[in-house]
Amino acid sequence: MRTGRVEAFSDGVIAILITVMVLELHVPSEPTWKALTAELPVLLAYLLSFVYLGIYWNNHHHMLAAVSRVSGGVLWANLHLLFWLSLVPFVTAWMSETGFATVPTAAYGIVLLLAALAFTLLKNTLLRAQGGDSRLRTAIGRDLKGKVSPILYTVGIGLSFVAEWLGIAAYVLVALIWLVPDRRVERTLGQAAEDEDPVRSR
Amino acid sequence: MRTGRVEAFSDGVIAILITVMVLELHVPSEPTWKALTAELPVLLAYLLSFVYLGIYWNNHHHMLAAVSRVSGGVLWANLHLLFWLSLVPFVTAWMSETGFATVPTAAYGIVLLLAALAFTLLKNTLLRAQGGDSRLRTAIGRDLKGKVSPILYTVGIGLSFVAEWLGIAAYVLVALIWLVPDRRVERTLGQAAEDEDPVRSR
Amino acid sequence: MRTGRVEAFSDGVIAILITVMVLELHVPSEPTWKALTAELPVLLAYLLSFVYLGIYWNNHHHMLAAVSRVSGGVLWANLHLLFWLSLVPFVTAWMSETGFATVPTAAYGIVLLLAALAFTLLKNTLLRAQGGDSRLRTAIGRDLKGKVSPILYTVGIGLSFVAEWLGIAAYVLVALIWLVPDRRVERTLGQAAEDEDPVRSR
Amino acid sequence: MRTGRVEAFSDGVIAILITVMVLELHVPSEPTWKALTAELPVLLAYLLSFVYLGIYWNNHHHMLAAVSRVSGGVLWANLHLLFWLSLVPFVTAWMSETGFATVPTAAYGIVLLLAALAFTLLKNTLLRAQGGDSRLRTAIGRDLKGKVSPILYTVGIGLSFVAEWLGIAAYVLVALIWLVPDRRVERTLGQAAEDEDPVRSR
Repeated sequence: MRTGRVEAFSDGVIAILITVMVLELHVPSEPTWKALTAELPVLLAYLLSFVYLGIYWNNHHHMLAAVSRVSGGVLWANLHLLFWLSLVPFVTAWMSETGFATVPTAAYGIVLLLAALAFTLLKNTLLRAQGGDSRLRTAIGRDLKGKVSPILYTVGIGLSFVAEWLGIAAYVLVALIWLVPDRRVERTLGQAAEDEDPVRSR
Repeated sequence: MRTGRVEAFSDGVIAILITVMVLELHVPSEPTWKALTAELPVLLAYLLSFVYLGIYWNNHHHMLAAVSRVSGGVLWANLHLLFWLSLVPFVTAWMSETGFATVPTAAYGIVLLLAALAFTLLKNTLLRAQGGDSRLRTAIGRDLKGKVSPILYTVGIGLSFVAEWLGIAAYVLVALIWLVPDRRVERTLGQAAEDEDPVRSR
Repeated sequence: MRTGRVEAFSDGVIAILITVMVLELHVPSEPTWKALTAELPVLLAYLLSFVYLGIYWNNHHHMLAAVSRVSGGVLWANLHLLFWLSLVPFVTAWMSETGFATVPTAAYGIVLLLAALAFTLLKNTLLRAQGGDSRLRTAIGRDLKGKVSPILYTVGIGLSFVAEWLGIAAYVLVALIWLVPDRRVERTLGQAAEDEDPVRSR
Repeated sequence: MRTGRVEAFSDGVIAILITVMVLELHVPSEPTWKALTAELPVLLAYLLSFVYLGIYWNNHHHMLAAVSRVSGGVLWANLHLLFWLSLVPFVTAWMSETGFATVPTAAYGIVLLLAALAFTLLKNTLLRAQGGDSRLRTAIGRDLKGKVSPILYTVGIGLSFVAEWLGIAAYVLVALIWLVPDRRVERTLGQAAEDEDPVRSR
């Protein structure tokens, strides 16, 4: 199977999730800057989740670009990832509407942790489907970020019981780690793309 | 006509349906694990419907991958399937908000049954368009799962009048049957893909 | 410009519109068949709008399949059509929530009429961009359905002031006219597709 | 990296934003023309935002059509643009529900201004990735519209504190400037498309 429709479907789901969260944003009750400022925590929670979904879309994009065929197992590993991502708007709303209370903040981290584990599972399923010496393996490399993230999420979940803002700080830290560009991956992909059939669709 | 846009449109609709259900999830009223646990039946109903829509997307993906051209009749048979699938969020919400009451649980099964019949209709319309000895026919084979599912849905609808959880059990059983991978189909498709023009886009 | 992104964007908007309407469906207040039956007019209005958006998607699909390049004017004519279609969920909700009252029923017809005129405008913009003797012109032919529909919509709008159900009957009639397959168009398109470069993407 | 998935994801997000706004439209409380007229400001605000998102989609379409490869930086610059666009439904609802009050009208302009700056950033990121003498540079030309828009938005934001309708007038003016076709860009793109590999997918 080609990767085309898996990419298209994942793009669709992530695009919808990222915009569905806008619907959770309550219009400020009064037409004043003060009323808007009162919504600031909600807007910042939205921003964090937007960045997270953006990171997942980016990484998904990179990973799928390095493979050419997918198996039935990949389709399900992908849907599994999308399931945990689909809960992001839910925990974002819970966390921000309760004013970043302890339990919802921890729950936010748990969903992020499970999404990260689902991403690793998808990566491994893809690697198994490509064989040992694939372009994907070269592109992924040691995958330090992928290994450190679940640890930081777990720390964040624990910290949110000490002080909610420490938990959030841990989640923001993971997002920042992923935002830093990873030139090595791009170089590998860029080179591989040039070796390939220039007619390769999409 | 090529299959590209039919796939893209179906991907779009199913992707939206799968995520629109998240909007039905009510944020727990209090920031406690207990309040989250109270939402557990709703979350499990969401999970079941997510899996069902995932199965339909998967099967749709496999089926369309085995055909190269579609007719006007196929477009309508496809829209007919999407109509019944579009009612899944509606019956999911009704079933879970009423605490899995008898009638909504039966209604959930009825929508699943009608979607299954619509899928069979789409399959037959595609087969007719491809001619007798097509790759699609080989890929589908005896289609045991497709024949057994409507029977199990009907049993589930009946059982939900005896005890709601028996009905749900039947629906879960059908989902599990479809989750088991079907290696034979993938093999046929894999082989066919290799025989094909490598330049074929998407 | 290629037609690819115009098709993808239109597919996206129509797919969202068709599913956004599901969100308008209120879950019946009680878990009884009677409560579901009370929602029947709303469900039937949803069905009618679903069929209409399906017809537009179908016709859009056919029309764009017969052209290979689009101009800037086409992009705007297309957005203009999508604007009127985007009001379909709005008037559907208004019409069905007021129990098919006179003014909302007429408003529903007005939106359908404006969408039909927008479709004609898009068709003419496409024809102008393709030149006089194009494949699109052959595919469209005399376009009897396209000429009769605005008249029937206007009649329906008028009739809805006499009796709402007469107006609805007119709208249902137009839908039925479009549901009848138009084999001649498909034949022209099928033949043209075979004459074309087989490597044509999407 | 190819532009395919960036286009598909952006199409998805903009398509959802443009239709999500329909959900903000409250169904008139009574089935009368008067009740519909009362919703007119809301509908006009929706129309303005629809046109703006349409303009962004159009310009995005043109710009991406003139490049063939994207870098990691482009992906993030693109997500940055989508973030500001995703706030359009939020400020549209705030502005129209408060009857075009001062602060929300200014906030609407601020979001438009930030989206315009994000678009310029995306353009510059793309230009840097393509090298100095690219087709994109030729297509963009002096980019007068892109330079004048932020100034007009700023004027509009200021004017909305004098009289709200002056602010809105400035925003409408910018929209009109962009609606006027820009034949020069299309010519450049048209010519370039003909020089290209005709097999290039999507």
